[in-house]
Amino acid sequence: MTEKSISRAVIKRLPRYYRYLGELMENGIVRISSMELSERMKVTASQIRQDFNNFGGFGQQGYGYNVEYLYKEIGMILGLESTHNVIIIGAGNVGRALANYSDFNKRGFVFTAIFDNNPKLWEENIGSCKVQPVDMLEEYVREHKVEIAALTLPKESAPQVAAKLVNLGVKAIWNFAPTDLNLPEDVLVENVHLAESLMRLSFRIKESGI
Amino acid sequence: MTEKSISRAVIKRLPRYYRYLGELMENGIVRISSMELSERMKVTASQIRQDFNNFGGFGQQGYGYNVEYLYKEIGMILGLESTHNVIIIGAGNVGRALANYSDFNKRGFVFTAIFDNNPKLWEENIGSCKVQPVDMLEEYVREHKVEIAALTLPKESAPQVAAKLVNLGVKAIWNFAPTDLNLPEDVLVENVHLAESLMRLSFRIKESGI
Repeated sequence: MTEKSISRAVIKRLPRYYRYLGELMENGIVRISSMELSERMKVTASQIRQDFNNFGGFGQQGYGYNVEYLYKEIGMILGLESTHNVIIIGAGNVGRALANYSDFNKRGFVFTAIFDNNPKLWEENIGSCKVQPVDMLEEYVREHKVEIAALTLPKESAPQVAAKLVNLGVKAIWNFAPTDLNLPEDVLVENVHLAESLMRLSFRIKESGI
Repeated sequence: MTEKSISRAVIKRLPRYYRYLGELMENGIVRISSMELSERMKVTASQIRQDFNNFGGFGQQGYGYNVEYLYKEIGMILGLESTHNVIIIGAGNVGRALANYSDFNKRGFVFTAIFDNNPKLWEENIGSCKVQPVDMLEEYVREHKVEIAALTLPKESAPQVAAKLVNLGVKAIWNFAPTDLNLPEDVLVENVHLAESLMRLSFRIKESGI
């Protein structure tokens, strides 16, 4: 169903559609017109139709969209019908925030282990995980199915840990370290660069002359 | 110097250029050709020239770029030559991570106050801030210069707090709550939606058939 040709812009919007549809379901809304969806999401109705046409389209002329059906279909496209095991490397504040955040779990992301170099943190429970030494990483990854590794550690140690994970066969990195990881092309890296996000805001503040 | 016409894509790349140039400076590199910069950043040399031409261009044919000069100029464009006062609403893990993260401070973002509804956290020091009750927010914003408010609270309370901040004159919101805030058009909102980032990764995992 999914095609290689799906543009980055569409991929960026899909989770947002998914979130909105989830909110509509929570509010008991069963169906929605593309016009209403467009108004709520501040995306044009034609853009929405175009986006959904990438996946065969889900609407029915005159009826609009069935919210639950659309939610499930987009969930499938996003790969949320199966669970994803995630390990966290770095038990600082960001690592803790991820491990404690129940919303991820609801969407099928299961945090299975958390690693840190600080002996004071070993054996501490964070969310449903016990903190383990980073030295245990290799053994852990060999013995468990790890789909995603979240790197929540300083930029100095991130490249080395990332390379190690890739050597162990991990194919998807969720990178919070403020550096770009140079990894083989078949490794998927999703960056969350908080400082860059803040700088964009600063740029827009300056630009708008606030 | 900055123009309204700068595209989102360029704005997105600027902080990345800035980060790279900072790393080059840390490594004692004084000048760099657009080709080298291009290789390191994995952006084409022509893209880099085009991006910089938005701001008058900084390179010299045959010399390349002076790293420190370029770093400072891009810093100016990003509004980093002056400090920005930031308050945090929500002293959970994400709020703590922001308040404790020294990199922001280096770039002129000063976290001046942190607010939370939980009385157990009041008076606790996080980074350089003491946690205050959310009820104190109004008084605080009236008496201090607040440029940016970081919302690190649940999606249920975020819209209400955001509206209050906007009423008090705050014009820039750094939103970590997993919801879109419907605020007046002149309010700048920069969203960090972690769940969406993770879903994009999940999409790419599925798409690539890992």
